[in-house]
Amino acid sequence: MEKLAAVQKMPEKVSLIHGAGGEMMQSLISGVFAAIRNNNAGGIGLEALDDGAAIPFGDQYIVLTTDNHVIKPIFFPGGDIGRLSISGTVNDLAMMGARPIALTNGVVIPEGFPIEDLRRIVRSVDETLEEAGCALVTGDTKVLPKEALDSIIINTAGIGITDNPIRDCGLKPGNKIIVTGTIGDHGIAIIAHREGFKFGSELRSDVAPIWKTVEAALDAGGVTAMKDPTRGGVASVLNEMARKSGVKIVVREESLPIRQDVRAAADMLGIDPLEVANEGKAVIGVEADRAEAVLEAIRKTRYGRDAVIIGSVEEGSGVIMKTRIGGQRFIEPPLGDPVPRVC
Amino acid sequence: MEKLAAVQKMPEKVSLIHGAGGEMMQSLISGVFAAIRNNNAGGIGLEALDDGAAIPFGDQYIVLTTDNHVIKPIFFPGGDIGRLSISGTVNDLAMMGARPIALTNGVVIPEGFPIEDLRRIVRSVDETLEEAGCALVTGDTKVLPKEALDSIIINTAGIGITDNPIRDCGLKPGNKIIVTGTIGDHGIAIIAHREGFKFGSELRSDVAPIWKTVEAALDAGGVTAMKDPTRGGVASVLNEMARKSGVKIVVREESLPIRQDVRAAADMLGIDPLEVANEGKAVIGVEADRAEAVLEAIRKTRYGRDAVIIGSVEEGSGVIMKTRIGGQRFIEPPLGDPVPRVC
Repeated sequence: MEKLAAVQKMPEKVSLIHGAGGEMMQSLISGVFAAIRNNNAGGIGLEALDDGAAIPFGDQYIVLTTDNHVIKPIFFPGGDIGRLSISGTVNDLAMMGARPIALTNGVVIPEGFPIEDLRRIVRSVDETLEEAGCALVTGDTKVLPKEALDSIIINTAGIGITDNPIRDCGLKPGNKIIVTGTIGDHGIAIIAHREGFKFGSELRSDVAPIWKTVEAALDAGGVTAMKDPTRGGVASVLNEMARKSGVKIVVREESLPIRQDVRAAADMLGIDPLEVANEGKAVIGVEADRAEAVLEAIRKTRYGRDAVIIGSVEEGSGVIMKTRIGGQRFIEPPLGDPVPRVC
Repeated sequence: MEKLAAVQKMPEKVSLIHGAGGEMMQSLISGVFAAIRNNNAGGIGLEALDDGAAIPFGDQYIVLTTDNHVIKPIFFPGGDIGRLSISGTVNDLAMMGARPIALTNGVVIPEGFPIEDLRRIVRSVDETLEEAGCALVTGDTKVLPKEALDSIIINTAGIGITDNPIRDCGLKPGNKIIVTGTIGDHGIAIIAHREGFKFGSELRSDVAPIWKTVEAALDAGGVTAMKDPTRGGVASVLNEMARKSGVKIVVREESLPIRQDVRAAADMLGIDPLEVANEGKAVIGVEADRAEAVLEAIRKTRYGRDAVIIGSVEEGSGVIMKTRIGGQRFIEPPLGDPVPRVC
């Protein structure tokens, strides 16, 4: 109940937890940004707080989304801020069921930033665009004094097209829940790298543009809801989907795909891998009779090989985990991601 | 020639002037960001370095644009960062000939930022959306430690729709050049406010969403090119339009609409009002036989009352000003905006 009180009372100043993707961020958004009345251009608008907006255009929808990337360090095992910025936006479009078409790049650079690092980021951006099959079509560049900003910030917005937007609130009792691969890789890799920990094999971020994996799922049919478990992780996303859909999600602990080295590192760091960001994964709700077909389609894609069904949807509310030893406990919505500047 | 050499040599580190909207920014963009090969989704892409991109969709175009807003102070005479962020993106869409439809809001907030200031910005955002007739449909919120960022940054991207995108490179010899109102108000107001100067009447920013002014011009017919004179001011924009169009622009000094108090302040500050940002103005090229009709249409709109024809387009290159005393001089492209963190 302490947690609930913290969420409900609006403080006088913004704190770090307000940007960490969990309940506190929801409270900031609903307490401040929800005051915008001009919030919808037809279709799905700001009020939905989904991964993006969908605007009807002829008999299709333009999906529009935006993300700021503030990760530190900007180069990390498995990726960099360039790959992250493109993947993040491609994946948000994909979560709305939209084929990514065109992205923007709004970059804020601290004075003194090495040009060679900028070139390296640009190369990574271009490679990720190539992989995702879309284009970066417009941009903006600002430079701030080094005492005003410590590290580069990249905003990426983008548009995609769909006939049929997928919501994060579309779960129905009976649906199965698929996660497209291993959980916690990005967040745990970032914090382990920052702390200088070595765990035998190097932990690597999963950052990747997963439109083709999502497209395979959509083509197989029966998808009812999608969301990508970035800040706040799978725990945050499952709770948000359950709450918005008015259902209960039941997850089996032994089905959760967590790499052995990620689990070991998470244990040492005292962090729950369910609460940290993933940057190349989707949580997908699917009609029960299509679940095996969707799973099979996803597993044939590059970023879907480790996909599994982790649970199912029931009448009720909240997110329950059935544990290995036969008990059950709530997976609670985290207040925020325990790893700061993670994406 | 010194200036040219400075532009052509790429330094090892990013400096403030690289973000100031002039020749140095062009050199950073062409030296680094132009390496992106996946830069076009059909239509007008990143390679055009226009105010936005245009993507063919059925028999229309989706125009997409983005801007980071880093102005300091965030509340200033005549506006605030909220009004600026919406106006900047509405105006970039308008410059491409597109009716603004839907905007995004990517905000990066320093820890400790007052919630009340955030609410005030959000109210201003909403009022400007109302005035511009469009919606803010999706957003993203990040929070950085106060030692990592000194002031709020707002990225606004947006989409608009047009049948016929207007380029900044469409000027033809014989065209007339219209500016939709007084020059230099925003940049001079910001620097005067920062320096604590008093000039009798308070100088105020011109920040405003000018789609309706632009729409009136388009409806009157004959518009060949448009660009909004933000960072780097009218001097930067005229040079960019002339260079991209492969023409010379000749401007008459006595026709330039500069408010008396702006001129006086600019003289005291030693700043050329032609080189500072405007946030509610457009420079418009128009066929000679339509120029009076377009001017009349613009003047009937709220933000176009002070519109004038400032010059015309000829064969050749560069931007020439015919001075009051009968001489002529080049208006050179500034290296950057002399006022830092101006938008």
